[in-house]
Amino acid sequence: MNASDTFTLMQSIGQQAKVAARHMARAGTAQKNAALLWLADRIAHEGKAIEKANENDLKAANDAGHDPAFIDRLRLGDKAVDTMAAGLRQVASLPDPIGEVSEVKSQPSGIAVGKMRVPLGVVGIIYESRPNVTVDAAALCLKSGNATVLRGGSEAFHSNQLLAKWIGEALVHAGLPEASVQVVPTTDRAAVGALITMPQYIDVIVPRGGKSLIQRVSAEATVPVIKHLDGVCHVYIDDETDLDMAWRIADNAKTQRYAPCNTMETLLVARGIAADFLPPMAEIYLAKHVELRVCTATRAILQNHGIAAHQLRDATEKDWTTEYLAPILSIKIVDGLEAAMQHIDHYGSHHTDSIVTTNHIRAMRFLREVDSASVMVNASTRFADGFEFGLGAEIGISTNKLHARGPVGLEGLTTQKWVVFGHGEVRT
Amino acid sequence: MNASDTFTLMQSIGQQAKVAARHMARAGTAQKNAALLWLADRIAHEGKAIEKANENDLKAANDAGHDPAFIDRLRLGDKAVDTMAAGLRQVASLPDPIGEVSEVKSQPSGIAVGKMRVPLGVVGIIYESRPNVTVDAAALCLKSGNATVLRGGSEAFHSNQLLAKWIGEALVHAGLPEASVQVVPTTDRAAVGALITMPQYIDVIVPRGGKSLIQRVSAEATVPVIKHLDGVCHVYIDDETDLDMAWRIADNAKTQRYAPCNTMETLLVARGIAADFLPPMAEIYLAKHVELRVCTATRAILQNHGIAAHQLRDATEKDWTTEYLAPILSIKIVDGLEAAMQHIDHYGSHHTDSIVTTNHIRAMRFLREVDSASVMVNASTRFADGFEFGLGAEIGISTNKLHARGPVGLEGLTTQKWVVFGHGEVRT
Repeated sequence: MNASDTFTLMQSIGQQAKVAARHMARAGTAQKNAALLWLADRIAHEGKAIEKANENDLKAANDAGHDPAFIDRLRLGDKAVDTMAAGLRQVASLPDPIGEVSEVKSQPSGIAVGKMRVPLGVVGIIYESRPNVTVDAAALCLKSGNATVLRGGSEAFHSNQLLAKWIGEALVHAGLPEASVQVVPTTDRAAVGALITMPQYIDVIVPRGGKSLIQRVSAEATVPVIKHLDGVCHVYIDDETDLDMAWRIADNAKTQRYAPCNTMETLLVARGIAADFLPPMAEIYLAKHVELRVCTATRAILQNHGIAAHQLRDATEKDWTTEYLAPILSIKIVDGLEAAMQHIDHYGSHHTDSIVTTNHIRAMRFLREVDSASVMVNASTRFADGFEFGLGAEIGISTNKLHARGPVGLEGLTTQKWVVFGHGEVRT
Repeated sequence: MNASDTFTLMQSIGQQAKVAARHMARAGTAQKNAALLWLADRIAHEGKAIEKANENDLKAANDAGHDPAFIDRLRLGDKAVDTMAAGLRQVASLPDPIGEVSEVKSQPSGIAVGKMRVPLGVVGIIYESRPNVTVDAAALCLKSGNATVLRGGSEAFHSNQLLAKWIGEALVHAGLPEASVQVVPTTDRAAVGALITMPQYIDVIVPRGGKSLIQRVSAEATVPVIKHLDGVCHVYIDDETDLDMAWRIADNAKTQRYAPCNTMETLLVARGIAADFLPPMAEIYLAKHVELRVCTATRAILQNHGIAAHQLRDATEKDWTTEYLAPILSIKIVDGLEAAMQHIDHYGSHHTDSIVTTNHIRAMRFLREVDSASVMVNASTRFADGFEFGLGAEIGISTNKLHARGPVGLEGLTTQKWVVFGHGEVRT
């Protein structure tokens, strides 16, 4: 397929999505749930078929010399199939956000003014190798009344095409337009360029994948993008604190899992508690083989407590802005709350930051003043997640300030319009 | 000032705004109100000084050969000065949106998760000749805890610089950073280009002015833009309706004022009621010298009722998408609700649309299905306004779907972050 054909194809997909979006906006909850549950059954009962389609992708990825981690992300085994089906049932069980009318208030003119929650319209999703995203993203967009254009990784092409076929059948079964979920049927990279520059058809783009994908999409898109860049998350241990709580949270925030975006990358410690807090904390990390990159004050305290110099690396300026996504942690001693907030403001990525303190005034200042999508008191940064926040599902975590910020669930895929209930009022 | 100097100046303004934004985010309500009220007094008491500065701008505009309407927009007379002072007192009297914590719910893990309303950060405002926008916009941004960079029209330079000086004094008087409101001190057009491409300093741009300004800003900005493009607003007269109400609303929506964006530009009439509704309606419009551009069915009905052929123009395809902002109205007869909604979807600008009907089912379908920022039942489109909607103030009307949609008040200049109240919880 040449670039011009791809452009024409994408225009046609966009047009169909826009027409489908009008139907989806008025689809009933029962209809949307019927599609989700039908698809869940189909996937659960025909796991073998999807695993077979997936085998084609795995073989091609093997032949292309992709590394084991890549192939692992691509694989749809029994467990992944069960998880997809369970996810669909979970989304079906969530309340429908669409149509909610809120804040209706009578005005002096006699009109009553409120807000109605409505779909965004057409959501474009661009993602990389994991084919389960096809089903997860389709489910969230469908439940929130949007039409969707999905552009998966070329390596998952066979898996995605079979899932797309079933999604289409589920929609038709429920009486919904087949075009309300479209999976782009080409691996041509020009399809991405077309998708992100069709504001006449696409209302928002959600890129899911590595940083290079997201940077490319952000730089080139003429459509609004709900995106997630870095997760350089901090925990600040205040000098008024409970040490057991501080050790527990700082341990969990770093070591519960290393790869997620909400994992702590920099630990900030108030000078007044550093000598008590840091040595046992460092022992915990070192026992788990976490590499520590430390400021000079931290090194002095730890070496003074018998930790060998070679077990520590000196943190460089670059460490404070690095999202390791690995068993590496930077540690810095700061004078106190103000210095901690300045560090977070200067070096952080405004994703998730937590204070551990027993001081109420400082807790409330941290909550109010730290300008991040999720700000926590006495909790592990690992909680910044749509499920843990009670959203029931998650399409991603946004580092945008406008529209959707932090974990994005069904509500983030909707907007509100103003509704006015009049009785013949006119303006004077 | 050359382009490189302007770029350096704007970078410096951006940096200072960002630093000021952190202070503004934690400013108390009393402090913000003190600045607003001090400024209101200053403007009220020194009206002569502002009128004198304004004279310089008016003289230059006269010399430059600007038309009377332009000069009228530029003029700050007694009334404009009083209105600015009253506007400041009004904003001071509004509730402070910042710091509001809502929807806090306990989660199974033990943490409580909610949302806190916070400022956007730094708001850039680009506007044209009216110098009163300097004060209005500064007031809204200040009350909502944002730092602001204001770029007014070069023709209002002297007026804006004096107002900027007083705003700075008001901020200092209240103990707030002077840099939290900055008025760009150059008329170099390159300042706009710099302002809209500094995402590292500016969180959102609000352009206020003509369509060409807004299109330029939207096309070139790398910062999110809260914008207002067209207002092609519709009133649909259903065949189940009260004729007196329909005449009253259709009259008001068009003729109460011609220039606002929420004025009706196209009147849609259900075929079943057209012969009863249209002739008296046309008489009202023609008596007010509103030019009527009509579909063939409308022409037939009106001529049949004795309106002369030459009093009507045939509507062309272009009329259905035109925002006249003038005593011109396009009229089309449609089969019914479905056709009306299709017309609005296809030709409208998704700004404000109203249905006049006594049928509940159709009213609710119109409210739900019409994808516009403000959707009304039995009310004049002229109500789409921050004051009429009860926002107490308005920075503009957004035709964006994301973030702020429709009339934008203080809340549209804020965002919400997630706040987590823990007691030492960790993720398992």
